[in-house]
Parts: sequence; structure tokens; C-alpha cells
Amino acid sequence: MTNKVPLPKGARGKLSFPRLSFFLAAVLTLFSACTTPTPLVSRGTSDLGIVIERTLGRVQVVETTHHTSLFTVDGLGDLSHASAVFSRDGRYAFIFGRDGGLSKVDLLSGTVVNRIVQAGNSIGGAISDDGTLIATANYDPGGIKVFDSDTLALVADLPSTGDDGKSSKVVGIEDLPGRRFIYSLYDAGEVRIADVSVAAHPVVTRIPNIGRLPYDGLTTSDGRFYIAGLFGEDGLALIDLWEAKPTARRILNHYGRGEQPLPVYKMPHLRTWAQAGDLMFLPAVGRHEVLVVSRTDWREVARIAVQGQPVFVVARPDGREVWVNFAHPSNDAIQVIDVQRMAVARTFIPGKAVLHMEFTPRGEQAWVSVRDSDQVVVYDTRTGAEITRLPADKPSGILLGARAQRMGL
Amino acid sequence: MTNKVPLPKGARGKLSFPRLSFFLAAVLTLFSACTTPTPLVSRGTSDLGIVIERTLGRVQVVETTHHTSLFTVDGLGDLSHASAVFSRDGRYAFIFGRDGGLSKVDLLSGTVVNRIVQAGNSIGGAISDDGTLIATANYDPGGIKVFDSDTLALVADLPSTGDDGKSSKVVGIEDLPGRRFIYSLYDAGEVRIADVSVAAHPVVTRIPNIGRLPYDGLTTSDGRFYIAGLFGEDGLALIDLWEAKPTARRILNHYGRGEQPLPVYKMPHLRTWAQAGDLMFLPAVGRHEVLVVSRTDWREVARIAVQGQPVFVVARPDGREVWVNFAHPSNDAIQVIDVQRMAVARTFIPGKAVLHMEFTPRGEQAWVSVRDSDQVVVYDTRTGAEITRLPADKPSGILLGARAQRMGL
Repeated sequence: MTNKVPLPKGARGKLSFPRLSFFLAAVLTLFSACTTPTPLVSRGTSDLGIVIERTLGRVQVVETTHHTSLFTVDGLGDLSHASAVFSRDGRYAFIFGRDGGLSKVDLLSGTVVNRIVQAGNSIGGAISDDGTLIATANYDPGGIKVFDSDTLALVADLPSTGDDGKSSKVVGIEDLPGRRFIYSLYDAGEVRIADVSVAAHPVVTRIPNIGRLPYDGLTTSDGRFYIAGLFGEDGLALIDLWEAKPTARRILNHYGRGEQPLPVYKMPHLRTWAQAGDLMFLPAVGRHEVLVVSRTDWREVARIAVQGQPVFVVARPDGREVWVNFAHPSNDAIQVIDVQRMAVARTFIPGKAVLHMEFTPRGEQAWVSVRDSDQVVVYDTRTGAEITRLPADKPSGILLGARAQRMGL
Repeated sequence: MTNKVPLPKGARGKLSFPRLSFFLAAVLTLFSACTTPTPLVSRGTSDLGIVIERTLGRVQVVETTHHTSLFTVDGLGDLSHASAVFSRDGRYAFIFGRDGGLSKVDLLSGTVVNRIVQAGNSIGGAISDDGTLIATANYDPGGIKVFDSDTLALVADLPSTGDDGKSSKVVGIEDLPGRRFIYSLYDAGEVRIADVSVAAHPVVTRIPNIGRLPYDGLTTSDGRFYIAGLFGEDGLALIDLWEAKPTARRILNHYGRGEQPLPVYKMPHLRTWAQAGDLMFLPAVGRHEVLVVSRTDWREVARIAVQGQPVFVVARPDGREVWVNFAHPSNDAIQVIDVQRMAVARTFIPGKAVLHMEFTPRGEQAWVSVRDSDQVVVYDTRTGAEITRLPADKPSGILLGARAQRMGL
């Protein structure tokens, strides 16, 4: 910005009104350069997160230091089932919607900066370890697609066609070190690893016969093991990714002990947060139980009776507690497992329809979505006390940006 | 900002030169409101970090997405031994200097926003799990001090006086869940836990007789175990913080096997990054070895011969490699241990005097300070290739802001 304002031609100490008007117009144009059309805040991003408002197709951008909502973001399509990952700098959320939408949201301005519809029906996605690639896991038309995280340009399109020529729904997608993704094929009972380290030449490794109807998958916090939950049988498939040629083996086989499983109306979820110290806490399917395996030898260590069919089983980052929520009709409650005692320590009811629980990265807070109370409740995990309640319309997923600093989330 | 610019009194279609000058002065004053004296950037903070320039008492603010330096920050006192922690929102670094300085740096503007000198000689500090408290570990006058992270106001002053009335140098300070800190008293051979959950009434628990001359300490990644390295004997002290009344027990006792230790010119460091999966990789003191213990039963699993006395032993986040640097005269090299094979896989020389190694949180990059080459080298950990070299004056510590999302760092 220079210090001189040029006088219109011919002015020598006096200005006529038309000339002054010109001058004013020039000044106002210059002023407008000082304003930005979309306000962009300057703040840290490491304490940001999003709350999915599933019915309205919106998200709220929240911050966990003072527990407030910063923005509401519209235009995200069908979020009745939604997931998200975060850019490595913490600035952007990539939101995967049920309608196959992939939306890039700037958390510093609460705006959608890019959006594509990349499939007919999608359930989730992942971001590569270096943050350059976004992968979507698709039900329809199946397969995964890989996109450039800057531009959302398509980088790779990897179908999930089985040996029978049929396409599988893809579930349980996770990132692996080295620009790779691992995912399960629900219909084919197969796991695949896509190595996209050279984007123009993706290499897909197939691990067949892992078990019937894998419905979700998790990786351990170091990305070494992948566990796929099975819906077609009572057991889980374990893959050690450090093996030169990884194969699947069965763990917790026949955990149903021959008993008839209960009807399942809501599938449980498997994620890295299952891990507490050396133990993995896994939801049983069709049973009122949480199954505990040792990460060291993969044997069952315990099973903990809970009040309903578990949906999310989430370990607090310090591993001392595991919080469990449930499918209908027990879905108003959370039960807290004390890991040292291997038993439920307390049960509490945040409100109507607890959909999701998310801990801050060092575990001092738990954020809980209570759909039919139209609220998000924030708890102090040291005391169990409520810190605050935030209004939210039919909230479902709560995802904190700190996930970007961890593998498998 | 309104759309009207008032005309000086008496102007009716014409302006004289003095009046135009007045008008111009008003316009320029208004323009100056558009500029901010200290430029504040709007960007994500989750990929930021600092590089300590130890001789000049400066830090560089760096970002790991494009591997560039954003700011150089002066006025940080004596950084010949320095450490830092980060605010939970990722915006601020709290830098602990050898001269007892505690400086709060805004990473979005590269400015020192607050600075106090809180001791005569200090070696490090920690931040509480909820981000509200900063604790400093002091050599002189010993003890720890606790400060409000917003204002740097003193909250608690906890001396390290032993039963003999003497003050100990404090080392190995770590945060614990629940607004607590754990630290070691070098001279008294004691560990203390300060519970500052009620700031006005800190409660200090003493764990005496842990062994001779604890020189540093680490917590496991879940904050459950504290390990203090001993300088006065060959062994380490282990404390299980889940015990109702924690006590210390000895692990890796007599690891020196009766052999005379080598003279130690540079003490090793112990931090949470020692952990790879179920294993802890610990530097031996006065020996050319890395000791490996199992986190499950705390027995020695292996010891790996290395080329010099290890200073930093840092596991890659996926736990497949452990990078080791050394004291003089081997301090130009890094050796990489392959965890699956439990052996050194490769040795390479980044330059002259490798002081520190830091992995990005998902492990795809390693940032290495090479003091006497006046450079920081960035490696792609998947291929081992160099990505870039950044100029830096006598760089020592490299600390990435993602540490704020983990316990013990």
C-alpha cells in the first residue's frame, strides 16, 4: 500500500463534485480489499472437531478447550450414516456421507471448499499416513476410490470384484504405513491391501477366505494388526501385517459357545480405540457381552457382561476405563468398564439415544452425542461430572481432529 | 465500516488543497486499521513444530507438510539445554530454557507472547492433561513450579527438600492423567507425584528409595508406568501408577553384568518414544547397548549392540524401527534397529553431530538435527531417502506440536 493517492487529472488544489465522487469510489474500492468475504479465523486447530447432525445433513465445528460450537456447516448431503477424517495440518475435515458424497470442509471458516459425489452409497473412508490421499469405501458400486486430498481429483479406482465376478460392499477401511489402505469385502469374505505409494500404479494384495461376512475392521494403534469382525459366524479374523505374505487366522472362535445369537438391529463398530494397554475390548455380535483379548497372544482374557448389545466400545486413552453404548432398547445408557477389575464399574444415562462417544486425545474429556435429546454432553473423565451440554440437532458422530495424529482413525 | 465518508465542513462541491490534505490523512488513518502490526497467519497448527537453535537462543517454527520454516523467534534466553511442550490447541509452544526461562511462543505469528525467568537453572517441564498447567523441573533452586498456561501466573511452588533437609535437582518430569505430574529427585533417589487437580491445595506423594541418582524418567504411552533411569547403579526403577500405593521395583538390575562402565560424557534421555508395541527400548548407561524389556512382564527380552553410547533411542510410531543416536565420538551416525529382527539394520551419517531425531506422529517422516552441519534433515521413513535439508544454526531439539495429543510428551 503506497502513501500517495493520485489526484484526478487537471486538479490543481481544487476538486469538483464529480471528481470527488470518483475519488470516494476509489477509496471505497480500496477499503473493500481489507475485508474478506468469508471470515477466516486465526486459532489453533489441534482442539477442533465436528459433530454430525444426521437428519439435517449438517455438521457443527466445535472446540474442546472452552467447549463451544464455532460454525454450522450446511450442504453436506445425506449424513444419516457418516464418517470423517482430518488433514494432517488439522485445518480440513473430509466428510464421507451415505449418499456417496465426499465433502472437504475448512474448519477455520466453516465452509465447504470442495464436494464431489463419488458413489451411490458409501460408508466411510480413510486418509493416508502422509495425508496426501483420501480413500472411500463404497457399498454401491463397491470397491474403493482414492483421491488427492488437496484437489479431490481421482487418483485410483479399485473395484471389489470377487472370483465369481460379483462386486462386494467394502467395509472396515483403514490406513496403513506407507501410503497403503486395508479393507474388507463383505460379500466375498476377503481382505485387500491397496498400496498406492506410486499413485499411477496401485498394487492390490488379496487375502481370501478370512471368514463369512466381515462387517467392519480395525487396526491396532501401531498399524501392525488388522482385525475384521465377522457377521456370518462368531469369531474374528486377525492379520499380522508384518508377515511377508500376510494371511488371516481366526481369534475368539465360537465365542457364542453354541448359543443362539440375538437378532441384531444395529451392527457394532470396530476401531483402534478398542485398545487399552495390552488388551483389545471387542463388541460381541448378538450377545450382551464385551470380549477381551490379549494383544500378546490373542487369547481370550475375559468377557464382560453388559446390559445390551454393544455398538461402540471405546477405551479411554489412559486405558483405565472402557465406555460402552448399546443398540435399542438399551440405548439411553453408557456402561463404564473398569479395566483393572475387568467389570462394569458404573452405568449412567446421558439422555435419549446415545449414539457415539469420543475422548479427547489425552482422555480428560468424553464427548457424547445424545440423539433424541438433541444434545452433546461433555464429561470430565476424572470425576465423571458433566462439564456442559451443547445443543445439536439429532447428533450422531463426534470426531475430533486429533485423529489425524494417529494411525487407524 | 460505513459507506459514507464525511466531507469537511463547508465543502459544497469543491475542496481546497488543505481540505484535501485533511481528507487524505483521514483516509490513510482508516487504511492503517486494515493492517495488523504483527502478521497472524490463518492455517492449521497440527503440522507445526519448533527447532531449537541452541547457540543463538532462537527457535525456528517449522511445518511438516511442505517442510518449510515459517518464523525465527528471538529472545528466548539460554537454550543450550532446552525443551518444550505445546498447548492443547496447538497454537503455543512453552519453551523451557537452561537459564530457568519459560517462554510462551505464538506459533501463528512467531512472537514471544509471555516470558518469565522462574529458576536459576532448569532442565525441562510438562503440561497437564487438560492443558491448564505448566510445570517446570528445576535444578536450582530445585523443586518444581506450576504455572497457569494462559497467564504464566504461579499456581504452586513445590520444593524438593529431602529428609536430610537438602534440596535435590529435579529431573524426568512427566504429566499423569488427572492434572498430576510425576518427577524424580536426582540427589535424594526419590520419586514424587504432585496432584494439582485442586490448584490451591496440591498434594504431593513421595516414593522413596527408588535407587541411586535417577537422571531421567519416562511414562508409558498410557501413563500407567513410570520408569526412572539410574546413574548411580545399573538398573532402572519401575512404578505402576495403577497401584493404590505405588512403590518402586527394580528392572534390568545389574544389566552391566559386573563390567566396568565406560566414562559417560553425555547422559541418555528417556521418553515415551521408547515404546514399540509391547516392548520398551532403553539406552544402557556407559555401554554400547540398547536394552529391550517387555511391557508385559518387565523382563529383559534382548540387548542390541550398537556402535556407541546411545543418547536418544526413539521408536517409529508404527514400532517397526527404532532410531538411535550417540554420544561423542560416534555422534555423526544414526543406527536403525529392525524390531522384528532385533538387530541393527542400517547405519547412516546425516552429517556432523546428530543431536536429536523426531518422527511425525504417524511416522512417515523423521526430522533430524545435525548441529555442526547447521542443518535439519528430513527423511522419508518408508524409503529412507532424504526429502530435504533446512538450514538451522547449531540445531538441537526438534519438537513437533503433535506431542500435545499424547501423554508423557
